[in-house]
This record gives sequence, C-alpha cells and structure tokens, in this order.
Amino acid sequence: MPKHDTIIEDILLPDGNIGHIAVGAGHIVSIGTETSPQADGSKRIKGGGALALPGLIDGHVHLDKTFIGDGWKSHRACTAGFDVRERVEFEKEALATAAPGENRASALVEQVVAHGTTHLRCHVDIDPEAGLKNLDLVLNIRDRYRDAIDIQIVAFPQSGIVTAPGTAELLDSAMRNGADLVGGLDPVGFDRDMKGHLDIIFDLAERHGAGIDIHLHDPDTLGLTELEEIATRTLVLGMQGKVAVSHAYSLGEVPEAAARKTADVLARSNVSIMTNAPGNRPFPPVKMLHEAGVTVFTGNDNIRDSWWPYGEGDMFERVMIIGYRSGFLTDEDLCLAFDLATRNAAQVLGLGINGLEVGAPADFVLVNARGVPEAVVARPEGRKVFKRGRQVASDGRYLGTG
Amino acid sequence: MPKHDTIIEDILLPDGNIGHIAVGAGHIVSIGTETSPQADGSKRIKGGGALALPGLIDGHVHLDKTFIGDGWKSHRACTAGFDVRERVEFEKEALATAAPGENRASALVEQVVAHGTTHLRCHVDIDPEAGLKNLDLVLNIRDRYRDAIDIQIVAFPQSGIVTAPGTAELLDSAMRNGADLVGGLDPVGFDRDMKGHLDIIFDLAERHGAGIDIHLHDPDTLGLTELEEIATRTLVLGMQGKVAVSHAYSLGEVPEAAARKTADVLARSNVSIMTNAPGNRPFPPVKMLHEAGVTVFTGNDNIRDSWWPYGEGDMFERVMIIGYRSGFLTDEDLCLAFDLATRNAAQVLGLGINGLEVGAPADFVLVNARGVPEAVVARPEGRKVFKRGRQVASDGRYLGTG
Repeated sequence: MPKHDTIIEDILLPDGNIGHIAVGAGHIVSIGTETSPQADGSKRIKGGGALALPGLIDGHVHLDKTFIGDGWKSHRACTAGFDVRERVEFEKEALATAAPGENRASALVEQVVAHGTTHLRCHVDIDPEAGLKNLDLVLNIRDRYRDAIDIQIVAFPQSGIVTAPGTAELLDSAMRNGADLVGGLDPVGFDRDMKGHLDIIFDLAERHGAGIDIHLHDPDTLGLTELEEIATRTLVLGMQGKVAVSHAYSLGEVPEAAARKTADVLARSNVSIMTNAPGNRPFPPVKMLHEAGVTVFTGNDNIRDSWWPYGEGDMFERVMIIGYRSGFLTDEDLCLAFDLATRNAAQVLGLGINGLEVGAPADFVLVNARGVPEAVVARPEGRKVFKRGRQVASDGRYLGTG
Repeated sequence: MPKHDTIIEDILLPDGNIGHIAVGAGHIVSIGTETSPQADGSKRIKGGGALALPGLIDGHVHLDKTFIGDGWKSHRACTAGFDVRERVEFEKEALATAAPGENRASALVEQVVAHGTTHLRCHVDIDPEAGLKNLDLVLNIRDRYRDAIDIQIVAFPQSGIVTAPGTAELLDSAMRNGADLVGGLDPVGFDRDMKGHLDIIFDLAERHGAGIDIHLHDPDTLGLTELEEIATRTLVLGMQGKVAVSHAYSLGEVPEAAARKTADVLARSNVSIMTNAPGNRPFPPVKMLHEAGVTVFTGNDNIRDSWWPYGEGDMFERVMIIGYRSGFLTDEDLCLAFDLATRNAAQVLGLGINGLEVGAPADFVLVNARGVPEAVVARPEGRKVFKRGRQVASDGRYLGTG
C-alpha cells in the first residue's frame, strides 16, 4: 500500500459501511472497512460517522458576473420577455458600478468551496469591449485558489462572434493565453448565422486541440436543428466526448418524441447537455436523455448576477433543484440527480475519475446524511470539504489553503 | 410606553434603519431608531446588525405524515402517474412501520421552529381507520410546543368523506375536540360527488363557526368549476375570508384568461389560495392572482413523507422556491414571495398581525441579510428565532422553552 499522510476514520462509505479513507500525496491510497492502516505519525481525522461523498463539480458557472462579495444589487426586469441582447446590455451597466471583479470572483470561489465544490467549469466573457480582461481575472483566481479547487475555463463570446467583429481573434488569443475550451452562443438567435458561428468555434477548437461548450437558449425546433448540426459536426470531426451544450432549453419545449430523436443524435456523437433546471421555463428532460445515452451534467450557472438574483453557489442545492424540477422521488432518481454533479460532470470535464476509489484525487465532502438520496433532499449543513486530502472548508466556512 | 422586559438592539429594521425592538409581556412595545428605552434591569440582546423579519408562517403542513425524526424511507413510485388513492394506500403502509408519530411530529416541529417558523396550519388526517388518533397526537404536540409555535389544526378527510362512511361524524367530533378548521379533498376527483362533499364540509363549518381549508388537486376545467362552486357557497353563506383552497393546480393548467375569470370569482368571495410551488407540475400563477385581489399564501405541505421525499420545514426555502418557480427576479416580486409566508398567511390564519409593529406578538427572526430580497434568495444560516419575545432557536438549533 502506498504511503499515506492523512487518515479520515469513522466515515460512512458509499457502499453503506463505516470505514476510512487514507490519503497520500493528495490521492486516495486506501478506502474501506478494514482496520485503518498503521498511523506512522500521519494525521488522523475523526469523521463522526458522516457520509463521504465525492467533491461536487459545478459544470457551468460565471465567476466574472457575480455580485457575491458586493452590495445587494436589485434586478431589473426585461422590458418585454427574456432577451439575451437586452440582458447583456443591462449586465454591462450593472458591472460598471460593481465591486472589483477580483473581490467578487474570490468571494464566490470561497463560497462554492465552502459548500463542497472541488471542481468547476467557468465561462469567461470575451468580447471586443472587455477584450481579455475577464480571462486575466479568472486566470489569476484559478492560480490563487489552485490548492482549493480546480477551475476549467471556457472562452465565452457573450456578445456574439459573427456580429461582434474581432471576437474570433480574441477567442483565439484566449485559447493561447490559458482558456481550456471554446465557447459559443446561440448561433442563430444571437448571431443569425448558424454556419458562420459554428465554423469559427469548431475551427478554433480543432486548431487548439480543445473542447467546446456552447450556450444554446434558442427555442424549440430552431434549437433542435442547431443541436443536430452541432452533433453532426462533432461526429465528422471526431470530437466525440469533447463537446457540450449548455441549457438546450429546446429539448424541453418540444413533444417528447421530437426530443428523443435529437437525443439519439446527441448520444451517437457523445455531445453532453448541461442544465441547471431553471425555475419557470421548460428544460431538458434529464431522465429521458440519460436513458437515451446522453451524458447530462449540471452547474449553478448564474449566481446572483444580472441574469437572475438566485443562487449561492451550492451544488447540493442545485442537485436538489434538478430532482425537484424533474419530479425525481425514488432513491434511484435522486442518485441520478446527484450523478449530474459528480460522475457525469467528471466525465464531461475529462477528469478521469469515477467517485471515491483508490488512485483518485482525495477530493471529497463529509456530510451528515445516511446516504446519497438523503443528502440530495436535505443538503445538510456542517459539511467538511477536502481537496487533495487537505481540509479546505468546515461548517460553511472556507479555511484557506495556507 | 408600556413596560418592557427584553430589548433587542442593533438590528436592521424593515424600514432599512438600524434600531431596536423592545418586548414586554411577549409583545412588541417599542420598535424604532430612537435610543433604546431605559433598561430597568431588562434583558439586553445584541443583534449584530442582523435583519429583523416577522416570524414565518407555514400555511400548510402535515405533522402526522413526516418521516423526519425517523430512518431514511425510500419513496415508492406511482405505478401509472400520480394517483391520490394509490398514495393514500402507500402512506398507510409506510406509516405502519414508521417511528411513533409523537417522535416524528415533535422532531419536525423543533426543526421548523429552528428555521424561523412561528405559526403553522396543520392538516390532520381523519378517516374511519385512524379515527381521531392523529388529532390527539397533534393536540398533544400543540400543547407541548405552545410557547415555541402557534399551531392551527384542520380536520382533514384524507380518505374522502362521501366514499368513506363515518368520516363526516368523525370530522364533527374532531371539531368538538379541538380542531380549528374543516378540511376537504377533491370533491369530484376523490369522492365523485361535488355537492355531497361540499354540503357536508360547509355544514360542519357553519355549525362550528369555523373556517374551511380544502385540498384541491383536481385538474383544469374540473378544478376551476369546483373553485367557482366553493367561492359561490362562501359568498352565499357570508364566509368571506374564512375559506382557503390548497394547491388548486387547475389555476396553472388552463389558459391565463380562464384562470383570470376564476380569480375574479375567488377575489369577490375572498377565498384564498395556498400553493407550495411544486417542482414539475403547473401551479397557480401567484402574481396574476395577487393582482386580481386573491390572497395567496404558502406552506411546505409534505415534508419527507410518503408523498415526496423533499423538504426540511424551512419556510425561507419555500419562499425561495415560490420565487424561483414563479420567475420572480425584481425586489418587488421577491418581496411578494416573502409576503406569501408572512403578511398574506397571517391574514388567512386570522392572526390579526401585519408585520413587526407595536402591539404585535414579538414573533420574529434575525437573519444575516441586507433586506427582504436578499433574505429570500440567500436563505441565510445563523438565524435567531424569537417567539413572544423569548429566543427559541439559534443557528438552526431548537433551544426549547424551558
């Protein structure tokens, strides 16, 4: 058995037994019910029978938009129904008078870690006005919190690409400067040019050997058409498993038979779908997609920003809302909701991990629950969060990594 | 100024100023920004700048059904879509092997108080099999926790009335034995007899001088017809303001114009509507009803029981879900969501109170927020709960009233 430096004892393991996790060099070196390995002066932590769960993964977040860490900002209503362009304008205005981005992003990162998130995928606004400012901000944040959380960065054209000249070049620079994935935004609804928009982002992805994660709010049949086009390009370019579509509301807006046809296309191309289960609009049918073989994952998306005032960066809350909005009641379904923020998200983010097992990074959360279903509905307080074997949060407080 | 025995200082008042609340004999005797009244040996509590909010009101709860305070109970799925009769059967089976009702109900009461609820309306199952067993249970609980929370009891015919012979007589006994309101259940969908069902409950209410609160899951046009019949009877019998309908899903299932017509009828009869904003089915349009003059209130309804596994008895969570599901984003709308669990619920429960003001019972919660909108979206931890001026909970823990 490899050498360990920390042992967490008396914890409820995923298999329902009380046991231990031994950590060495930031990874799990032993997990199970047998007697804890000899201490050898290693650190011993008592788990008090708490349930050990893998660290949660926020698959879609905007660190550069939040008002967390700032004063309360009242939301301004859309003038006539939801309109992405109007929201973008309101956002620019609101952020102009907000606290420095560094303060807001760091406050949010500490909050998400405190809730039990150990990985996140962050979409960073790239547009001709902001240039690479937001990217630089999030690169700094990523570096500063590298021992508390792993951050994946998507270069996100929030103001479009085709209709915002210069953006394609900025995205290219962003990819050279440290962004991990190429983003996109409503090729038809925003840029009015499906081919033009997708040509650019798939080309960028190919040149940088990167994945893609596209925001797609476009509705019903329009949205399905774009999904199928994205899936087709993914297959043709051999990018299976590297392309995700965020929101994809259209899948929840059409008759189930139509959505199922598109689901089959997505499954064949291994294009994954991110949903945060919004409150008052249809969203992708999680279970149908899962059964069709599509990898569905989740993220908090907007957290108290110009897009909506809700959220506190808690993936346990998000998972509850996924289940609540999807009508999930049985243990099996509640576990599926949980998978969206763990197993499935890990697959989409390419983390190469599958829960708590020997060899995996020692990223986990201890919560007071008797199993995953209860953790999903109860979202217990008093969590203890570990990143690469080191405790980084306790009872909702970020402890730092110093 | 009347004599006070406790002063809570350094709190953020609803008007946005920092001030105090002075309590005497369980009531607010002074509230404002002027210097705190002379102490006279009274108890002084520092609020630390926390926001003072009226105690929350859970307008619909089932203390006799919960599994809180018991082991984790896996949910059993409906065999073919949601069916009230099937649920009732499953519930009986599940409760037969559950922990004693006294333990579960008291665990739940302590939990709801810990979250900041100071009043609740509890529906108690009355049927030929259970008789008045559940009523006796909740009467005991009400007495035991009378210094921590006010409990209003609805005699609820969970197994029907017309189709469950003997129930009408049991409801009558329940009203004599301490129940406050007469309940009902889907006159057509369950009992297949709108006139028969409503004749019985309106007669009982009249004879006992009591109000009515009817569970109505019946869908679309059927549900609207029942709502209009209930409203008409309310008007004819002069029972305006004393009749509530819980759920009334139908109002969210029909075109808005149809719902608006029924809303006008409800407003004229002052029949109020309770919704808990369920996760995956349409529910009453809160804002439209509010604008039409209908009093809308909210409650947690089922809390981890045979009907669904969600909920932890936190009305702050419920208010967030009301807003989230209703698409409420502006401060005004978030305050409306909050009103459903405070001002509106107080009106429906006939409490004769309207927020924090001199003369009102000193039932309030201190939370870390800068205003109601933030309290709604953030549901801050670390609440302090006061019932008639005495602190009954702190940081999520029930303190008792001893």
